[in-house]
Amino acid sequence: MIKIILDAYGGDYAPKETVIGALTALSERKGFSITLTGDKAKLETLIDGLSDQVPEDRLEIVDAPDVITCEMPPVEAVRKMRNSSLVKGLNLLNTDPDAKAFVSAGSTGAVLTAATLLVKRKPGIIRAGLAPVLPTVKGGRVILIDCGANSECKPEMLLNFARLGAEMAKKYLGISDPAIGLLCNGTEDQKGTDLTREAFRLIKEKNDLNFVGNIEAREILSGDIDVVVSDGFSGNVALKACEGTALAFMTLLKEGIMSGGLRAKIGYLLMKPVLKKIKKTMDYNAHGGAVFAGLEKTVIKAHGSSKAKSIAAAILQAVDLNSEEGNDD
Amino acid sequence: MIKIILDAYGGDYAPKETVIGALTALSERKGFSITLTGDKAKLETLIDGLSDQVPEDRLEIVDAPDVITCEMPPVEAVRKMRNSSLVKGLNLLNTDPDAKAFVSAGSTGAVLTAATLLVKRKPGIIRAGLAPVLPTVKGGRVILIDCGANSECKPEMLLNFARLGAEMAKKYLGISDPAIGLLCNGTEDQKGTDLTREAFRLIKEKNDLNFVGNIEAREILSGDIDVVVSDGFSGNVALKACEGTALAFMTLLKEGIMSGGLRAKIGYLLMKPVLKKIKKTMDYNAHGGAVFAGLEKTVIKAHGSSKAKSIAAAILQAVDLNSEEGNDD
Repeated sequence: MIKIILDAYGGDYAPKETVIGALTALSERKGFSITLTGDKAKLETLIDGLSDQVPEDRLEIVDAPDVITCEMPPVEAVRKMRNSSLVKGLNLLNTDPDAKAFVSAGSTGAVLTAATLLVKRKPGIIRAGLAPVLPTVKGGRVILIDCGANSECKPEMLLNFARLGAEMAKKYLGISDPAIGLLCNGTEDQKGTDLTREAFRLIKEKNDLNFVGNIEAREILSGDIDVVVSDGFSGNVALKACEGTALAFMTLLKEGIMSGGLRAKIGYLLMKPVLKKIKKTMDYNAHGGAVFAGLEKTVIKAHGSSKAKSIAAAILQAVDLNSEEGNDD
Repeated sequence: MIKIILDAYGGDYAPKETVIGALTALSERKGFSITLTGDKAKLETLIDGLSDQVPEDRLEIVDAPDVITCEMPPVEAVRKMRNSSLVKGLNLLNTDPDAKAFVSAGSTGAVLTAATLLVKRKPGIIRAGLAPVLPTVKGGRVILIDCGANSECKPEMLLNFARLGAEMAKKYLGISDPAIGLLCNGTEDQKGTDLTREAFRLIKEKNDLNFVGNIEAREILSGDIDVVVSDGFSGNVALKACEGTALAFMTLLKEGIMSGGLRAKIGYLLMKPVLKKIKKTMDYNAHGGAVFAGLEKTVIKAHGSSKAKSIAAAILQAVDLNSEEGNDD
């Protein structure tokens, strides 16, 4: 049985929401088990209080009572806090052959640093890239890689990310020949920086991908592209700009309804199913976390503000990435 | 009287929408005149057919019959097409002391190249930066500089952009002590690339701005920041990602209403004022074009898909930037 390790103490709403997320995932799908890392005594008490239908053969707790605080520099935290839920979880991922994936909603810096230091990369991979999965207007999904693991990149790294993204799109999104776009400030071949121009040339030269060329950030959510390749800095900017704009819309909608009088409120009630559907489509947390792609085993970074639903989605995403074709994502 | 030069043949809907935009601007505000550049005979026929109330003392046409096509490399186009509406307009901006600003909805590449080659920079400015004005959720506006004029930047250029943005925020948005944020992939001081870290240090050291430090792209539309400073590549990514997400929302909303049956349609009718207001708030074309900041005279790049309303807004923006305090924006 596949084992997924969950950092029970990572995230803004840990450990309560992470534990509920784990129980939700277990009840939704069979065929895998979860190992929680964190303060064992506290987790046991928490679980006892939450449910009397815990599938005990599928839920294990490994004691990891140390707590990494936000103030700690990531490298120092990883080196010193060996009994933290993060470090212990990743060490378990390395040593337990049944353990296929590690999921954490802890701080991005700490999770990426720990995974980089502790988990081996796949052969031939220079750097792992953070790859969230976003919803598109066409109802599909798009992978954005890298979104912040590597601020400064070399062209070869972008080629790497293109291949990792393609692999993930094939396996996780079920797209046989994913369309790969290079994030740029224009669609013309010669646009961009020295980095993107050289990466463009490399990806084109290797000719092993369905490379559609340079794309603008406007096209990310269009549904025409399956994998958007970027250095970690620009990818992060693109991701956060999308998030911020979606949030802005929701805020304006709420304010508009609140200040729009009875008419707007009745309109809202009638339109609620439509708006709920949009919110669901645009809510990328429901689609799982960001995969730290390029490592020998799956590491998933869930959003820091993940509640149970997002944690459960990230766990099931880890299961999906490791089912059928084994552990070669 | 201030003279604004309008590239009547720039933009997807030129010359009809540019001309209507010019007439709209003239009827909305007094105290300035417009000089149209383009095919004089055609423009005269067009104007005759559009309105019989043209304020002839405030509208002039300068013949510029050459047409720059999208296929032409910008530098070559600027050098060879001296009788194009773009090049002639910019040369007029240089030579006519009454001419204070040039507005074009032509291709970004051509407009920026032409302005860079033909219009002098202000003393002390290394590079001009493209600075669109975006609406925020708080009802205010935010300036994003640079959004694509300079793909590769040096730290000194980002300091330049910060100052130019601050100046524009003071003059055009009327904010006395604008909050300046540096676009980054995290809010911590040490986040980012060598470029952003050095720019951070420089801006901080100069200490002549209200510098709030690194900001994430999520905060661009929040209303907490007045000027977002960035290299042209990342700035373009941020801008286009915001645009794309806004478009995605509108598309999903339309589709949801169309497929949501009678209930959704009635709901939409009731909510229409709210949605219209949101659309208006988020429609950054209504707020004018992107200022190419750092030049001795004002150059404004309106969106390529500008219709009359956006052209008029960009013209009035040019007037605003040149009223009261003269021509020192």
